[in-house]
Parts: sequence; structure tokens; C-alpha cells
Amino acid sequence: MSKKYVYLFSEGNENMRELLGGKGANLAEMMNLGMPVPYGFTVTTEACNQYYADGETINQGIHDEIFAYLKTLEEQANKKFGDPANPLLVSVRSGARASMPGMMDTILNLGLNDEVVKGIAELTQNERFAYDSYRRFIQMFSDVVMELDKSKFEVIIEEVKKAKGVELDTELDADDLKDLVVRFKTFYKESLHEDFPSDPSDQLIRAVEAVFRSWNNQRAIFYRKMNDIPSSWGTAVNVQMMVFGNMGNDCGTGVAFTRNPSTGENKLYGEFLMNAQGEDVVAGIRTPQTIDQLKEIAPQAYEKFVAICGRLEKHYKNMQDMEFTIEKGNLFMLQTRNGKRTAAAALKIACDMVDEHMITKEEALMMVEPKQLDSLLHPRFDDKALKEAKVIATALPASPGAACGQIVFSAEEAIEKTQQGQKVVLVRLETSPEDIEGMHVSEGILTVRGGMTSHAAVVARGMGTCCVSGCGSIDIHEEEGYFTISGKEYRRGDFISLDGSTGKVYGEAVKTVPAEISGDFDRFMKWADETRVLKVRTNADTPKDAVQAVKFGAEGIGLVRTEHMFFEGDRIKAVREMIVSKTEDQRRTALAKILPMQQSDFEGIYEAMEGRPVTIRYLDPPLHEFLPTNSSDIEQLAEEMKIERSELETVISGLHEFNPMMGHRGCRLAISYPEIAEMQTTAVIQAAIAVNKRHPEWKIVPEIMIPLIGDKSELVFVKNIVTHVADDIIAREQAELTYHVGTMIEIPRAALLADEIAEEAEFFSFGTNDLTQMTFGFSRDDAGGFLSNYYEKKIYEQDPFARVDQKGVGKLIKMAVELGRKTRGDIKLGICGEHGGDPTSIEFCHRVGLTYVSCSPFRVPIARLAAAQAAIKQG
Amino acid sequence: MSKKYVYLFSEGNENMRELLGGKGANLAEMMNLGMPVPYGFTVTTEACNQYYADGETINQGIHDEIFAYLKTLEEQANKKFGDPANPLLVSVRSGARASMPGMMDTILNLGLNDEVVKGIAELTQNERFAYDSYRRFIQMFSDVVMELDKSKFEVIIEEVKKAKGVELDTELDADDLKDLVVRFKTFYKESLHEDFPSDPSDQLIRAVEAVFRSWNNQRAIFYRKMNDIPSSWGTAVNVQMMVFGNMGNDCGTGVAFTRNPSTGENKLYGEFLMNAQGEDVVAGIRTPQTIDQLKEIAPQAYEKFVAICGRLEKHYKNMQDMEFTIEKGNLFMLQTRNGKRTAAAALKIACDMVDEHMITKEEALMMVEPKQLDSLLHPRFDDKALKEAKVIATALPASPGAACGQIVFSAEEAIEKTQQGQKVVLVRLETSPEDIEGMHVSEGILTVRGGMTSHAAVVARGMGTCCVSGCGSIDIHEEEGYFTISGKEYRRGDFISLDGSTGKVYGEAVKTVPAEISGDFDRFMKWADETRVLKVRTNADTPKDAVQAVKFGAEGIGLVRTEHMFFEGDRIKAVREMIVSKTEDQRRTALAKILPMQQSDFEGIYEAMEGRPVTIRYLDPPLHEFLPTNSSDIEQLAEEMKIERSELETVISGLHEFNPMMGHRGCRLAISYPEIAEMQTTAVIQAAIAVNKRHPEWKIVPEIMIPLIGDKSELVFVKNIVTHVADDIIAREQAELTYHVGTMIEIPRAALLADEIAEEAEFFSFGTNDLTQMTFGFSRDDAGGFLSNYYEKKIYEQDPFARVDQKGVGKLIKMAVELGRKTRGDIKLGICGEHGGDPTSIEFCHRVGLTYVSCSPFRVPIARLAAAQAAIKQG
Repeated sequence: MSKKYVYLFSEGNENMRELLGGKGANLAEMMNLGMPVPYGFTVTTEACNQYYADGETINQGIHDEIFAYLKTLEEQANKKFGDPANPLLVSVRSGARASMPGMMDTILNLGLNDEVVKGIAELTQNERFAYDSYRRFIQMFSDVVMELDKSKFEVIIEEVKKAKGVELDTELDADDLKDLVVRFKTFYKESLHEDFPSDPSDQLIRAVEAVFRSWNNQRAIFYRKMNDIPSSWGTAVNVQMMVFGNMGNDCGTGVAFTRNPSTGENKLYGEFLMNAQGEDVVAGIRTPQTIDQLKEIAPQAYEKFVAICGRLEKHYKNMQDMEFTIEKGNLFMLQTRNGKRTAAAALKIACDMVDEHMITKEEALMMVEPKQLDSLLHPRFDDKALKEAKVIATALPASPGAACGQIVFSAEEAIEKTQQGQKVVLVRLETSPEDIEGMHVSEGILTVRGGMTSHAAVVARGMGTCCVSGCGSIDIHEEEGYFTISGKEYRRGDFISLDGSTGKVYGEAVKTVPAEISGDFDRFMKWADETRVLKVRTNADTPKDAVQAVKFGAEGIGLVRTEHMFFEGDRIKAVREMIVSKTEDQRRTALAKILPMQQSDFEGIYEAMEGRPVTIRYLDPPLHEFLPTNSSDIEQLAEEMKIERSELETVISGLHEFNPMMGHRGCRLAISYPEIAEMQTTAVIQAAIAVNKRHPEWKIVPEIMIPLIGDKSELVFVKNIVTHVADDIIAREQAELTYHVGTMIEIPRAALLADEIAEEAEFFSFGTNDLTQMTFGFSRDDAGGFLSNYYEKKIYEQDPFARVDQKGVGKLIKMAVELGRKTRGDIKLGICGEHGGDPTSIEFCHRVGLTYVSCSPFRVPIARLAAAQAAIKQG
Repeated sequence: MSKKYVYLFSEGNENMRELLGGKGANLAEMMNLGMPVPYGFTVTTEACNQYYADGETINQGIHDEIFAYLKTLEEQANKKFGDPANPLLVSVRSGARASMPGMMDTILNLGLNDEVVKGIAELTQNERFAYDSYRRFIQMFSDVVMELDKSKFEVIIEEVKKAKGVELDTELDADDLKDLVVRFKTFYKESLHEDFPSDPSDQLIRAVEAVFRSWNNQRAIFYRKMNDIPSSWGTAVNVQMMVFGNMGNDCGTGVAFTRNPSTGENKLYGEFLMNAQGEDVVAGIRTPQTIDQLKEIAPQAYEKFVAICGRLEKHYKNMQDMEFTIEKGNLFMLQTRNGKRTAAAALKIACDMVDEHMITKEEALMMVEPKQLDSLLHPRFDDKALKEAKVIATALPASPGAACGQIVFSAEEAIEKTQQGQKVVLVRLETSPEDIEGMHVSEGILTVRGGMTSHAAVVARGMGTCCVSGCGSIDIHEEEGYFTISGKEYRRGDFISLDGSTGKVYGEAVKTVPAEISGDFDRFMKWADETRVLKVRTNADTPKDAVQAVKFGAEGIGLVRTEHMFFEGDRIKAVREMIVSKTEDQRRTALAKILPMQQSDFEGIYEAMEGRPVTIRYLDPPLHEFLPTNSSDIEQLAEEMKIERSELETVISGLHEFNPMMGHRGCRLAISYPEIAEMQTTAVIQAAIAVNKRHPEWKIVPEIMIPLIGDKSELVFVKNIVTHVADDIIAREQAELTYHVGTMIEIPRAALLADEIAEEAEFFSFGTNDLTQMTFGFSRDDAGGFLSNYYEKKIYEQDPFARVDQKGVGKLIKMAVELGRKTRGDIKLGICGEHGGDPTSIEFCHRVGLTYVSCSPFRVPIARLAAAQAAIKQG
């Protein structure tokens, strides 16, 4: 009847991640595999949800269950919580289904107080160890449970070290640490007006609550939004018997990957510190040793660890990221999980594991996060420019890629500058979870401290952002806004460049060149192509974009926005002349000037696409977008056009709309001014005939797409114009040319009446940007203001403009697909909104049975992989 | 196999109106009933549609069929088309399913040419008659087939009369008319560069084509739009043997109603002219005699006519509107149809016919057009003001009602002025179908010429617009913009008032008083209430409106727009203070000022509604609507608020949105500023408790409506605020109070996810204004510009903001109803968009199973009747 909220590690397994979180499930699994895991138990994710349902309190039932399991843990460990004679200390760690760096991570040594610490000192005969553990505990508890600024504690440590005249923490002796404990507790009381909690049970419950609370801190929310994690998942809490890496020189702690997470090389990769606790390694305060060196220092533990690594990788069929501690020579495993890796590493590992017969191609395809490919698709440094550039420092190549941007010193600054359209490199002493948003928008990250597994390095790799870490030669002055290297000053706003693959820092902007798909990448993408059912097209308005997209594997163009061609050079003049026209004749005269330019645009695109299908959308935006808005531009334009300023102003104000998004645009323009559609049809058809003449092997079949249809009768009207003009030209030119007329489905009514519309439309392309706006009833341009409130208050978790809202917008899409197919069984169905490049949305497109997705050129490989994964998932 | 496109009258009956049109079906029916109807045949509405399908040509098949039936007609009539020795002349008349004054009406005497006219003269021994018929034919053919301006022909007649020194047409003799024929034909040739067609077959086909064409002239399209007639219906054409009312003094022609169409009195009512053709009566050129006088002049024909009237009324169970001609003492029926009548007459006739056991109450309810009631709901003259007002003229009371407005002299001017918000009275020599739009927007119509059945009178009664006709004492100068009565000048823009029930004209603005429901109206509305299933509520924001609505039968309020209360008096100051607030505290301070005002508003409304349900919608519009836009108002407000102008400007520009319709409004405001929803909840709940204390018998149950919900989570958030505040107050006050929280369904996504939303919402109210905007993807404020192109090009026929778009928006509504009921079987469902007062939309609401409709107070009786009709129709 009553729900079970706590599980011993020995009760769980890897399939219980929903309940136990990733960390808890994997600890249980390792225990099942007979690996050395310290005893412990997991408070479930359901307990977390119950905590929130109960108004952020742990109810009596769960409370009692936790302490019942603590009793079992005492029995397993043969120690007693809070008993100075034989004390049990525990770690408390968060653990959601997916690893979430935004959340509370760890409290070690919980259970210590002024009595217990003495017991520990006596039992271990190691007073220094006992007080070192105690001061760490106070520090961590204050930080993660009470949210006292941890840097304040660092300041106190610095003071004690300074007073003693030493530099390293390790140089502090037991008495110094005792002194530190007193100072820490005093500071705690001064800050919080209460004593540091001495009751271990109280400590435990407060720590568990803190983990639950951390599920909803701002960083965690941001991380979830970015990574598509629902807030309903909740986090589990792992309570585990402490083992100590800081008990002496035969102790240590470390993290390692079964393969190199940066390059993918099949070689154990990691770092460790002797006589330290876990936080020392990841915090990057002391520079750790590489895992190879463990072989010399603790050969037995090393051998055991290597064996475990092998078993874990085979077991999970994936590269593992592990934490371990060595206590008096004995190895303990504290965590394993599928390791984060760079895109290049991910591809190499996937290909290698297939070659090693460890996994199938399909499993390989599922192993790479499509979004991650993005980092491989962006420019790298131009070789020549790189040779000429001056290296000002070399540090750890923490996350590969090439970054070039202006220096900023804080996450806020990074956000602000990028919002102004600038590219920035974030330079920090070390990064912390608070910086996550700023890291996300930066081109690259450069840190003074920290190793390959520091916060900056791990997060940057996850994001696919270039990172160079541990650059000790930098003398940084964040507040003052500059740093120096070898005496030379680099100020906020100066350009620097980073090479995340070599760790080199350049004191200038270095030219970059485009990426290409080759090697493992190419091999992997071919597997994806063999597997997927969805076609992948691109949105491209220029031959240059089209060529790029084809290089990235695009099979056609799903959206040419003809209006983009209207802005260039001389065209805008003719376009404006058309808009200012008072009669149809004047308009036709202006359109006649645009025609040859538009035709040559289309010819260029047809040439670039070499016979692949191209969907051309007719003029879409409201006409006022082509006219200037500010006074001096209006003045100038009036002069250019040789009309009265007031006349031009009348035209502009006549075009003003209260809600232009829902105004005179799309097919409504073609209905008011059929001559525009006539000109565009002439351009499309003449271009196709001309290119077909030059390349008869291509057999171009123009696809003409009429935007913003809401009723069949609109399409009938515009299609009539198109067929009339097209058929005339084809007859006149005695050409053989097939063409298709279709529509965008971007207005809710079009989706609702898709059966009728399909009577006329030969294809549909879902314009999910507009469809989302109208289905939600908010404009993308304006929603920013209130959607931030929505995310804060957890009303929405996802940006519906980034990912198809499957419940609402998706329901309309499904309806339209079914209705459209009912009328026209072979109707071609695509998507050309920005959602076409989003993996989750692509999976949705696959499931509802679209023919293709269309996305920006740089998203094409991502879409190819996402489409393959969708096919595999559906089985 | 092949379709039949032509039917003899003897082949048809009254049930074939879809095929034969109303006129054709009724002619056939009268023939079946053995009444004297001249022989003829009907070219079907399907032939009209085929004409358009064939690119506006009559195909050979239909052409041949027409002439085959003409042959039969010749046999029946024993005359021959185009044969001077024994000529058959015909009338050609349009006849759609519904009577449509916008269309071509009639061509008489078709078949005449220079030879035939001589034959007629000889046969009838009446040269004057022959040439009078001929000149009429040329005039009518030129006008309706060739679209030559008919006033040009009037000018020629005037010239001839002037030359001869006579005043009346009847004073012209045969030679004058011969002369006229020559002049007409010369003018015809000069204008059209071709001879007047002398071949009767050619005349016939061109006339039939003209009828078909007239189906799509601008007036017909406008009339259809106004009266909800689909363009797919098409019109039929009736070709009928001529009988002549202009053959001498034993001949005549007239129109009559079986009851008085103005008052409903059960007494034959009509007019006739001896020695005239039909057009003379309706055109109002000669002033006709009343039908009573026919008793003396042609007693036999009169008796026969009276008997036929009785039979027709019993047969059709409705008041009939008939046309007849007397040829040499013999009565012929040329038309019968259900007569148009004023709203008062409609009610009296309905009630009388029930009392006469002629019809059932249900039939009575179906007999009155709901929209017509509108004319009874608007003000009439204040008795006292009326006594003091000076009558400047008295003429025919052509359509009842009280009108007061500024003088305009053309339809265009009427449209222009009313668009500027002014009320106008249209003064015309006589009106014509071209004036229909102008008549529609005018408060009243005053004509110098024409009787009770003139164009102006008939159309005004149909529209429920006040009309005084035949006001001969006016000396009108339309072009110069003034008229004089007894030497006094009334200029364009001066105020006059018309009493359509007495025919009195007042030379000033006369005060009006509100209407009330009593007598027949009250009795009739009670029948409607007994019959209908749908409840009828009102949209009202003030106690005054609420009281008015209750008088009109409202059973509750479906929509209180709380923001309307925000604009009044001192409140706007506090509202602005709230908007300019920078912190939640400041905002709360301002809201505290609004609270007592808002509460007293709600108390007022609860008092007015005396316990009837009231749905209160929370703040909906974007906040910028409460701030000034122009520079001097901003300056003034800044001074008032004692803030810097620049600060205020920053606030205003911060609130600017690109698409405010889709911006920060509705529940989005409550989510950003929960304190607004808190204040509104406090006001609603405290008001309900206070009024319940004063009137415990009412047991008020507040219905709180959250606008613009697109996702359940939004409703959860706002509902939490509401229940929290409400429950606190109820507990504090120790009151017993139930309240409901519901939502508007006005965003497509809400309709799509209505099952989820119904988990939280206790009621739905469809906000069809916004739902229509977002489903169609056009903004009501902006659509005017392009929708006119849509109507012109026949892409849309209906204004989706006036009538629910059943195919698209209606599909969403149906879906939401089904989904909502699935979750919550007893969910209350209403509509509060402006469609709630539109009869067709109300029928739709009934069919999909809504609980109530809500409309403006003046629409309540209309809605009550429409709801009853919907219930009857569904059976």
C-alpha cells in the first residue's frame, strides 16, 4: 500500500534510474557486479516530488524511512552515526536521472561534530585527518545547505595560511585545522545567527532537503531548459558511507574516463590526487597527477581499477566516466556513468567500438547526441593565419574548437555583449555553476585554474564550446577588467583567440575556415543516411548557402525565401518603387525591373543544387518591411525616388499595421497585387527552363510554395495566377517542364482544413514558426518579456520556438498530415520552420510521417543523425 | 443522363425553389393552384452556375433548351415570338432562392422591334400602347442588359415633354412616343456604337445572360454578404408571356400584401396604377392609388384578387406580397412571396396567425427573422421632446422607427460620415439599388418621391431602418447639398429627425428614449423562452447595462470586462500609477487604491443582477493601453504623476510591442504581476460577501474567468492565486461562499488541449473574437485593408468576425466542447465573443451543445429568438 521511498544500493540496479537517479542506479549496478562500492542507500526521485507536493517539507513517513535505512547502513558498516567511539560518516549526493551540473553535488564527511571528530582522531590516530575532514564538512555544509558564500571560507583559510607563512593547504597541521574549525563555526554563527548544527541526524535531514531544494535553483532550471529535462523528474539523494582519500599518503581520490573524452583515443584517461578528497580534484585547486602515474604510486589499486574500467565499459557498452577513492591502499568506486565527450571523440569512440565489435552501427548512431555535431560544423582556424598568429600562452586543451572573440570577464558581460551581436571569449580565474549561461553564449572559455576535469572543462565539452583551462601564466584582474601575460596587458574588449584542441592562446583575432565532413565523421554520417527514412533539405536563399548545405549532405532546398533577394543592392530600389506605386501599371513597371534579377537568383540556386529539388516560397513579409522607418532615411529615400517626402510618409503610414505579424502579408499580398505573383512565377519558370537548357540531365521541377494560406479559396486564386503565367511561358518557349504548386501550413485554420487545401496543394510545408505563434497566441518578437516569467514560475519549461510543442502545435500538425493524406495520398510533406533542425522535433516529424525536414545548412548533419535515431527508436 | 435546365411553370412547384428560385417556384405553385398566371418557363439556377463554369457563356445545350421551351410557350400562348402578325412578347425576370433587391429585376415587353411594334398597334388598335411598350422595353433593356445610365433616358423624356409643354408621361401621345423610340435608339447607338438589337431571339439570350451576370454585380454581392446568401446558389431566370396593364383604362397593375407590412394589421394593403406597367408602381414616379380604390374601379378583378389572397395566405401560412396585372378587366398573378414586414408587423402577424389557428407557436417563432427584432430594441422619440419638436413635413410612414442624424445626400457621403462616427439621415430624390450600402449605415432615409412600396420603403423595412418616403414638399438640390421646405433651407450636416411610424419629419435633433418589450413582443418572446434550450446571458460592464439587459431578458452576465472599469474617472490615475511602478510594493500601493473602486463596481453589478450568475473576466488588455500615446498627453501625465517625462517615456517604450494582440496581456499579466489577480480576487469575493449579506436570498456564486489561457499550467498558476486569496477572505469573514474559476477558450492551443484545461477550469467561455483572429492568422484591426480585396475577388463571402467560421474556428470549438466534456461532464460552456449575438452563430452554438450564449444587451432578444429557432430546427 504505502510507497517505498528509500532503497539500499543492494536493492537497486541500472534499470531503476527513473526512481534512483543515474548515480544511485549505477552505484547499485556496480554493487551487483561485485565491485567495491561503499555501502549506502538512495532516497528516491519520488520522495523529491513528494517533498514539493508537501509544500517543501519531508513528511514524517519519508523521514522515518530514511532513518530506518540509516540503521541498516550502520549495521552493514558496523559503525554508528554520531557515536564518537565508532562513528559512521556519510556523503550526501544529489543524483537525477540525467547528470545535472546545475544542482547541488556533494557533501562529504557528514556526521561530524566536536565529539565525533575527537573519536575519529583517536580511532585513526590521525588528528590532522580528523580536523581536515571536519573543516571540509563545515565548509561544504555551509555552502550547499546554508548557501553561505564559499569564497568567504577560502578567505579564512588564506588568512590562517598567511599567518603561518605557508602556501599549501597540506602544509597546515592538526592545530591549524582545529583553529580553522573554530573560525569557521564562528563565521557560521555570525552569518546565520545560529550555531553550526551538531546533531548528525539534523545534519542529514537538512542535507537531504538541500538536495531536493537544489532541483529548483536557477542554474538547475536553466540547465534543464537547455537540455530538455522535465521538472517533474525530480532528483534522488544518495547517502553513502564515507571512505577517505585524505587519511594519509596511501590514500587518494580521482576521476577517470575509460577513453580520452577529448580525442576519443582508446586509452584510460584521468587524474588523481593523493591524500585528498574528491572535491580537490574537480575544483582544480591543486593540480592533479595523471592516471598513468597511479601505476607507480599504488600499483595494486591501479590494476584493480583498470580491470574494473574494462568490465564497466563492456557492461554499459559505452565510454565510462568514473570517480574512485583509495583508502589505505584499497580501491573504492564512488560513481560511474556514460562519460561526456567532445563531438570528435564521440564519433571516434562510436566508430572504434563498432570496429571492436562491441556495438552495432545502430547502437553507434544512438551514442552520439545530434546537437553535439554542431561543434564540428563550425569554422576552425585557417592554417596560414594560424602560423602567423602569435601564441601568448599554452595551457590545457580542455574542449576542442576554434574560438575568436572579445575578452569579457563575467557571465553577465558575456550575455550582454552577445545580445549586442558581439562574439566573446570568457576569461575567468575558474568557472562555477553560476556561470553556465555566460559560458553558453561565449565563443570560448579560458580559465586560469583547473584541470581537464574542472568545471569549466566538463561543461564546455558538454556544450561543444571551445575551452582552454589551467592557464597559470595569466595574471588576472577580473574586477579591473584586464589580465596580463608576460607583462603585456589584455583588456576587456580586446580580441583573443583560443585553440581548444592544442591549448594555445593567441593575443589577436585569428582567421577561421569552414569545417568539412571527413574521416570518422563522414563514415558515421553515411551510417545515418543508410538508416533514416526522413529526407533532409535545407533552408537557403543564396547559391553560397546552397553549396554549403549540399556539402553537409542536404538533399534539396525546402525553403527559398524570395524576399531575402529583394533587399540586396539595386533591388531594394526597384522594390520600393513598386511599393510606392499608385497604379497597377506603375507597379508592373517596377516589377519588370526586379524580374531579371529575381530570375538570375533562381538560376544561381538551380545551378548550385544540380537538379536537387528546390522549393521557392513567394513574397511573404508585409511591404512596410522594405521601407525605412527613421526620419533621415525617409528623407533620403524620398530624394532618391524623386517624390515628396510627405507622399512617402503617407505610403509608410498607410502600410502601418497594429499587428503586422497578422497583417497584409503572405498570399494576401499576391491576392491584392496579383502582378507580384505573376513576376515571381515568370522568374521561377524562366529560370528553370534556362538551366534545364544548359543542363538537360538535371530535369528541374520547380516547387512553388504559396505562404500563409488559411483557406482553399486563397490557394485557388493564387494558383490560378501561377498556372496561367507558367503554362503561357512553357507553351511560348516550347519547353517541357513540370512544376508543382503547394502551400505552407502555418495558420491554424490551414491545418484544420488541410483536407480541402490538399485538393489544390501538391505539397505541404509546415511553417512551424508562425504556426507556433498563432497556436499559442503570442508573437515571438514580444514573448521574450513575459516568457522569462513563465520559465521562472515553471509554467513553461521549453521554448516552443526552439522545439515543436507536440501537445498543441503537434496536434495540429498530425491532424493536417492525416487530412492532407486523406485527400491526396502521395502528398509531399515537409517542415521548414526553425524546428526542422531540432532533434526532438525531427523525431516528432518522423513519427507523424513527414517526407522531409528542412533546416539551416549548419543543422543539416544534425538533422541527418536525428532522423536516423528517430528511425532506430521507432524500430 | 443530361441535366434539365429549363422547366415550364406547369412542371414546377413551391418545393423547387433551389432549382427554380423563389419567383419561379411560386409562379409554378400558383399555376398548380389553378390561379391565373400567364404562361412561362424558368431557366434554372443550375444553368446560372453552368454559365459561370463555362466562363460566362450560355452553352449550346442550354441555348437550345431555352428555345425549345420558347416554342412550347408559343404553343401555349398561341402567339409567335417575333411574328408581327401575332407577336408573343415576354418578360424576363431574375429569381434567386431568396429575394435579392441587389440583382437585375425585370425586362418587360421583350420581343418588340420596329416590325412587331406595328403588329401590336394594329392588333390592339392602340398605337399609343404599342409605342409606350416599345419605348419602355428599349429603356429597360438598355439599362439592365447594356448598363446604359437610365437617367439619360429620363432626360430625353423630359426634353420631349418640355418641347410639348406637358408634365406627365401620360400626356404624351402615340407620335410623341414614336419620336421617343427614335431618340432612344439614336442615343443607344451613339453610346454603344451598335444598333439596338432587333432580333427577338438575340434580345432574349442577351437578357438571360444579363440576369446571370447580375448575380455577381457589386450590389448583389453586398446584399448576399449582408444576408448570408452563398454565391454558389445562383439565380434562375423567368421568361413569361406578357400581359399588359398599360393597354388602356380597363388595364392596370399593382402590388399588394395580404396584411399591413408596416403594422401587421390583418387587412389587405397595397397600391395600383391604372394604365401602367409594373415598374411605374415600384419606381414611385406616379403616385399610385390604394388597393381599396380598386374595388370601385374594377370590382370583379378586385373580388377575384381578394379570394386569391385568402387562398395564398392559407396555403403558404404566411403573409404574402403579390404582384398582379389587370389586362382588359382580367386579373393575372405575376408573383407571390412571403412579404417583408417591419418587426412590429412580424410579431403581430405571428401572434394573430396563432390566434387564428392558422399556425402553431413553433411556426410563429420560425416566421420572424431574429435580426429584425433589432429595430424594436432601439430608442424611440421621447414623448415630451416630440411634442416640443417642430414638424416640418409629413409624408409616408414607409418603415417605422425613430431616426435622428445629420443630413447627407448620397450613399458615399453616408458611408464616409458614419465611418467618422457620425449619425446620418440619407435624403434622396428617390433611392436605387446602388444606394444600398449607404442606406444600411444611415439612421433613417427620407425620399422625395415614391410610395410605400418604392425601393426605399421596401429596402428600409427589410433592414429595420426608419424611412419616410414620398415627401413631395421637399425641394431637393442633392448636388448643391441642401433642400428647402416651405422656403427654409436645410443644409448638409444639419440635424433632422424622422418618425417612420407617423411619417413626420422634424427639422432638428429630437431626444429619444429606450425601447421596452411588451404586448405581442413580450408574448412572442415568452414562446421563444419556452422553446429554447440555450441560456442567454449578456456582456455588460456597468450596472446600467446590466439592468437594460435584464429588461431584455438576459439570464445572467457572461462577460464583465473588468478593465472597462479601469478607465473611469480617478481610477485611470491609480491604474497608471500601478503601471509605472518599479517594484511590487509600489504596485501593491497603487492596487490598494483601485481595490475599493473595483469592489464597489462588482457590488453594483451584483445588485443589478439580483442573484443571476455573473462571470467576471480578469484584466485582459496589454498595459500600454492605459497610457497616453501623444506627446502632450505624456507631458501632462508626467506632471500629474510627478515623475520625469523621460521616465514615463521609458515605461511607455518598454511596453511597446510589435504585435500587441499577441503580447503581454490576459493571464500573462496575472502571471507577471500576481498582485493584480490578488486585488481583483479580493474585490470579487468581498463584493459577493457584502451583497450576500444585504440579500441573503440571492446566494451569489462568483464566476471568475481567467483570459487567454493556452496551457493548463497557466490556469493552475492563476487559479492558485485566486483560491488562496478567496479562501483566506472567506475564512476571515466566516462567510459561506462558493465560487467557480473558469477560463476563456480564445487561443487555438486552449481548444486543442481543452481536456487538460478542463481538469482545472469549472467552465469555458469561447472568446470567439480572439479565437477567430488567431485561427485565421489575421488581426481584426488590420484585416480591413486586405479583406476588401478578398470580398471583391470572392475569396471570402462572410466576415468571420460577424459570423462564426464554422468550418475552421467551429471545428476548434467542437473539439474543445468534446474534450472539455470528456474531462468534466458537467462543465458549463458559453460564448462571449461578439458572435454570441449573431443568429447563425447561435444556431451553431446550440448544435455543438453550449450551455449559453452571451451578447450585448441589445442583442439579447435576438439571441433568445435565435436560440428558440435553433431548437425548433434541430427538432
